Amino acid sequence: MRLFQERGYDKTTMRAIAKEAGVSVGNAYYYFAGKEHLIQGFYDRIAAEHQAAVRPVLDQETDLEARLAGVLRCWLDIAAPYHEFAAQFFKNAADPDSPLSPFSAESEHAREAAISVHREVLSGSKSKVPEELREILPELMWLSQMGLVLYWVFDRSPDRARSYRLAVRGARLTTRGVALARFRVLRPLVREVHELFTDFLPGMTRTEPGGAKPDGEPDPA
Amino acid sequence: MRLFQERGYDKTTMRAIAKEAGVSVGNAYYYFAGKEHLIQGFYDRIAAEHQAAVRPVLDQETDLEARLAGVLRCWLDIAAPYHEFAAQFFKNAADPDSPLSPFSAESEHAREAAISVHREVLSGSKSKVPEELREILPELMWLSQMGLVLYWVFDRSPDRARSYRLAVRGARLTTRGVALARFRVLRPLVREVHELFTDFLPGMTRTEPGGAKPDGEPDPA
Repeated sequence: MRLFQERGYDKTTMRAIAKEAGVSVGNAYYYFAGKEHLIQGFYDRIAAEHQAAVRPVLDQETDLEARLAGVLRCWLDIAAPYHEFAAQFFKNAADPDSPLSPFSAESEHAREAAISVHREVLSGSKSKVPEELREILPELMWLSQMGLVLYWVFDRSPDRARSYRLAVRGARLTTRGVALARFRVLRPLVREVHELFTDFLPGMTRTEPGGAKPDGEPDPA
Repeated sequence: MRLFQERGYDKTTMRAIAKEAGVSVGNAYYYFAGKEHLIQGFYDRIAAEHQAAVRPVLDQETDLEARLAGVLRCWLDIAAPYHEFAAQFFKNAADPDSPLSPFSAESEHAREAAISVHREVLSGSKSKVPEELREILPELMWLSQMGLVLYWVFDRSPDRARSYRLAVRGARLTTRGVALARFRVLRPLVREVHELFTDFLPGMTRTEPGGAKPDGEPDPA
């Protein structure tokens, strides 16, 4: 991570990484097939740290808005040391077809960990969620977290104060959305938004053998 | 534009642009204060071409979904020659604080032109739109167009076929959303989504003297 931060992702070679780690290049490749796999390791570490950090919030809060705001704040806390790297790394991760994208098949492990946090945000809250949206909402909540991440990447306010405020506002908005989902008339719209994302973002579909869906082709129906 | 496409935005100097245009550097600076202003000229040109190209659709269609799909398809047609440039230029434009961002104060002219197209998409359709959302919806429709643009930037499908399909799907979804806005219970949510964008995206607020709002600080209330 330090090399990536100092030299930039594009200019950092596996050779340099191996040297810095005091291992042979062959040995480095034994553990990581390439530097994009090192990034996956980084994603997994962030996800694991986040899962640990949210325990106090998820164990104590029952209010959906407080749970979600707490989870988003935790993410900002944990990601803080990597802000500079994230800004320069962004152009690699923003391409949904790149293995480095949070939507890629390769990122599935970290993504699943992150979505499972949102599943618990919802299931442990005292908010009533219609059965038919219980699978879908955590993925949409994670998508809105990706919106926050995008905002944070470009946030130059001191200590990312604006991102923290956006986390609070986003949590409030999501909570209102969930409350409105009790109205039957709205549910088809929620499902359609979710379908649009699963059809058009490669890694959002259930992983099939061979990785991501080759095309975002919706059903011919 | 050709120089930007060949050398990349970052590596193209005003000196090189002046030389290519057969004018002195001083003369180039007389018309454009810097290369970011050339990009604004490019944005304005795309917006003007788009406004012209949507006339047949807006003059003939009265169905909201068909109007919106037509307008989005027109944009993809017009932007096609710049796809390669857009991909490499993206990292400059994705930063909401950059003058090159579609959300910046500097981009206001092109943004206003684009939003006015959506205003007409809505006003010329036979769909009923509640008075209180008439100002807000065109901005949200333009925001969703920015989502399509982001998708298009990374679309590597032949002839951007996936982006064209997303345009159709997005138009359908937006139309359903507008239809649901007749339910009073939903309107506060629409307003809150809009408020969130205006509070946190610099150029989304009404332009004040001196340019964009310095911070996305929401009202202390």
